[in-house]
Amino acid sequence: MSATNYDLIVIGGGPAGYAAAIRAGQLGKKVACIEMERAGGTCLNWGCIPSKALLKSAELYTKMQHAEDFGFKCDKITVDFPKVVERSRGVADQMAKGIEFLFKKNKVEHIAGQGRVEAAGMVQIMSGKREGEFLTGTNILIATGCRARMLPDLKKDGKKIMTAREILDRRDLPKSCVVLGAGAIGMEFAYFMNAFGCEVTVLEMLDNVLPVEDEEVSKFVERQFKKQGVSVMTGTKAENIKTTRKGISLEAVKGDKKQKIEADSLLVAIGVTANMEGLLSGKVKLDMDRNYIKVDDHYRTSVRGIYAAGDIIGPPWLAHVATYEAVQAVNGMFGHGEPRPMLRFPGCTYCQPQVASIGMTEKQVKEKGIAHKIGKFPFTASGKAVAALASEGFVKLITAEKDGEILGAHITGSEATELIAEYGLAMELEATWEEIHGTIHAHPTLSEALMEAAAATHGEAIHI
Amino acid sequence: MSATNYDLIVIGGGPAGYAAAIRAGQLGKKVACIEMERAGGTCLNWGCIPSKALLKSAELYTKMQHAEDFGFKCDKITVDFPKVVERSRGVADQMAKGIEFLFKKNKVEHIAGQGRVEAAGMVQIMSGKREGEFLTGTNILIATGCRARMLPDLKKDGKKIMTAREILDRRDLPKSCVVLGAGAIGMEFAYFMNAFGCEVTVLEMLDNVLPVEDEEVSKFVERQFKKQGVSVMTGTKAENIKTTRKGISLEAVKGDKKQKIEADSLLVAIGVTANMEGLLSGKVKLDMDRNYIKVDDHYRTSVRGIYAAGDIIGPPWLAHVATYEAVQAVNGMFGHGEPRPMLRFPGCTYCQPQVASIGMTEKQVKEKGIAHKIGKFPFTASGKAVAALASEGFVKLITAEKDGEILGAHITGSEATELIAEYGLAMELEATWEEIHGTIHAHPTLSEALMEAAAATHGEAIHI
Repeated sequence: MSATNYDLIVIGGGPAGYAAAIRAGQLGKKVACIEMERAGGTCLNWGCIPSKALLKSAELYTKMQHAEDFGFKCDKITVDFPKVVERSRGVADQMAKGIEFLFKKNKVEHIAGQGRVEAAGMVQIMSGKREGEFLTGTNILIATGCRARMLPDLKKDGKKIMTAREILDRRDLPKSCVVLGAGAIGMEFAYFMNAFGCEVTVLEMLDNVLPVEDEEVSKFVERQFKKQGVSVMTGTKAENIKTTRKGISLEAVKGDKKQKIEADSLLVAIGVTANMEGLLSGKVKLDMDRNYIKVDDHYRTSVRGIYAAGDIIGPPWLAHVATYEAVQAVNGMFGHGEPRPMLRFPGCTYCQPQVASIGMTEKQVKEKGIAHKIGKFPFTASGKAVAALASEGFVKLITAEKDGEILGAHITGSEATELIAEYGLAMELEATWEEIHGTIHAHPTLSEALMEAAAATHGEAIHI
Repeated sequence: MSATNYDLIVIGGGPAGYAAAIRAGQLGKKVACIEMERAGGTCLNWGCIPSKALLKSAELYTKMQHAEDFGFKCDKITVDFPKVVERSRGVADQMAKGIEFLFKKNKVEHIAGQGRVEAAGMVQIMSGKREGEFLTGTNILIATGCRARMLPDLKKDGKKIMTAREILDRRDLPKSCVVLGAGAIGMEFAYFMNAFGCEVTVLEMLDNVLPVEDEEVSKFVERQFKKQGVSVMTGTKAENIKTTRKGISLEAVKGDKKQKIEADSLLVAIGVTANMEGLLSGKVKLDMDRNYIKVDDHYRTSVRGIYAAGDIIGPPWLAHVATYEAVQAVNGMFGHGEPRPMLRFPGCTYCQPQVASIGMTEKQVKEKGIAHKIGKFPFTASGKAVAALASEGFVKLITAEKDGEILGAHITGSEATELIAEYGLAMELEATWEEIHGTIHAHPTLSEALMEAAAATHGEAIHI
């Protein structure tokens, strides 16, 4: 019952798994990729990609409501909400087909089912048409990723209690919703639902929304959300969460104050949990780091021939980091150069205003006692932003006093998630503020703000 | 009648002039800036900035007409065209006020009027309240820029015959318009007018629209324009241009074929001409390069103490290059470091699809016989682009085979004008394809396409 010997068996078809499989295919290797749902994994089918389609619809809808500012008006805008969601499903389907095409193109054998590592070099298919089949391979890469974490006493039902997964598959919009957790996912769905008329309350235990971001950015986004009509409660815990006949109820607890909140739905966006269930036979013991698989700088687990990459090896749980790790792992296992270390990564939130950052926050820089300079440039001073009626937000750059290199970069506002790429490359190349300032940026663009923020670290910005 | 002695007298208040004045102010210098119209010059008042406001309105209007694709619909969209234009005037006004504020902040004396160089160290004010006054200064910087070039036998009337200047000040949309010249300005207005329902014909003498761009990009944009309903005629000359009772008529001549075209208006967008009139007294003789002032690598003219920067020193006639040159000139004249050379610059066109590029085209690379590799990545393979319903276009990167550095980069599609910034920095830092490929780009973003195009130069792109 044992199938052909593979060079690589990948378990999981998300941004780590599919990228690893395709990369190994490019290198001429014989590869199988076992995915229990659709190629593309959570990111592509139930995460980043469909949510961006929803957010784009929300953005356009909001703009259309303010079309008079641009010189025209709609008599009546009718929202076909199921269609908004259907479009996002269509986008996910199209991209998943793209990955399936790339599997074929790169001669990756795509197996629908769940994979279980029986031993180094052996994987059993546990579900699907080929259930029970054993595959042998020189290398195994585990890339099963994570899924949304649930609170222990709650049960998802897709209507009253949801995670991102359920809300993405829902064809109606709740009239009111409490979003538990103001990380990227919570904030994105809060923006989306509010834009289409849902009454949204965001509860965040920590002091700021987007708690990993620079505090100044978080405070700015919180103010913007409030202007948009979202109720934001930070430093607040949710207790006594219950489903009711109509929806849910909970107590929002801030210090010694309690407030009862009722809503149609609760979106739980409090982080992720590793997909380890049924992944390893009892005979395979991998060293773990808390709930995540421990790997070395070659993405090797503690068992020879078994690798892991992506969310399953722990934070930051980002698709682009997962892809990077997986490609490095494959390059390393097949001798295509040393795997490069993952030194830094951008983080993005796609609500409006968008947020993107890389490197340290101001607080982190101060805590480390690094002598630094800060340059800020507001989009109100950007001709392009003003022309586009998108002048909310700013660029904040933190550079080292010693050598002028970037310690951290923070952008909030229109297209922040695209703009951060330049600072990412700058950090990769150890560019100084002077090199960024000395690079001619096209006028008029939002990207000029990145040049001006660099100049502003030394009082040389022209437009502020 | 001679006023205080200045460290610097700047003639012209556009992107070169105002930047020079502000920069000198930052350095603590006593500066006057003489501008005969509004601070900000053509770019800010009658060019880049107001046109971007118009284009943004056109973009949103077009999207609203296809709102059903996003899941909602407008019953009736009413365009208040004068308001569309008024908004663009408001944006220009706001930005001009910003420059006036920056003048005050940096203690720049802003003089309304025309300036004439009487001799090294002396400028006479030729119009405005202070007409007849003489200013003396250690340094003079000429930054009078350029204006739209007219055909010799034509006279602008703002209705039948226009340049960009007149169309920006017009509150109505012609029913039909011939755009003469398919450079950036011609293409932007063609896109804008067509979007709002004007019947547009673009005539271009050369073989391609946007003739300075990579041919593949030009052909792509031409196809997109035709899909949008613009009539595009390349390799075509306009002869016998006449105003008629109703509008204009001309003969479009391609090879031995002639076609008569009639329209309400003609937009002449065939390039620029230097603003030299009345600039120099008979006693001041500056070396010229054709019609432009000749300068050395410190932006010094042939007369000691007189500098020039921006469009007045010749191509590429771009605001961002003008600003860069002016700041370098000022840094140099006041000993704040050696002026940096202007090695390369991005070029942008803000129609839809947008176009942005830096460095050489494929044709130029081939003509120079440089061994190279090309990497292409279509936005159809970008999850973000598909999610945003903006997947037309591609990234094309040309790298040197020798060292892997960028020779040229070409982007067409959504946000191309923002995305080019990363490649600009990459070229500035002499980054290789591997360094761009090795930089983690946020997922899902359009900027990933820049990483993938770099990877594609060596067959390592994951998503194609």
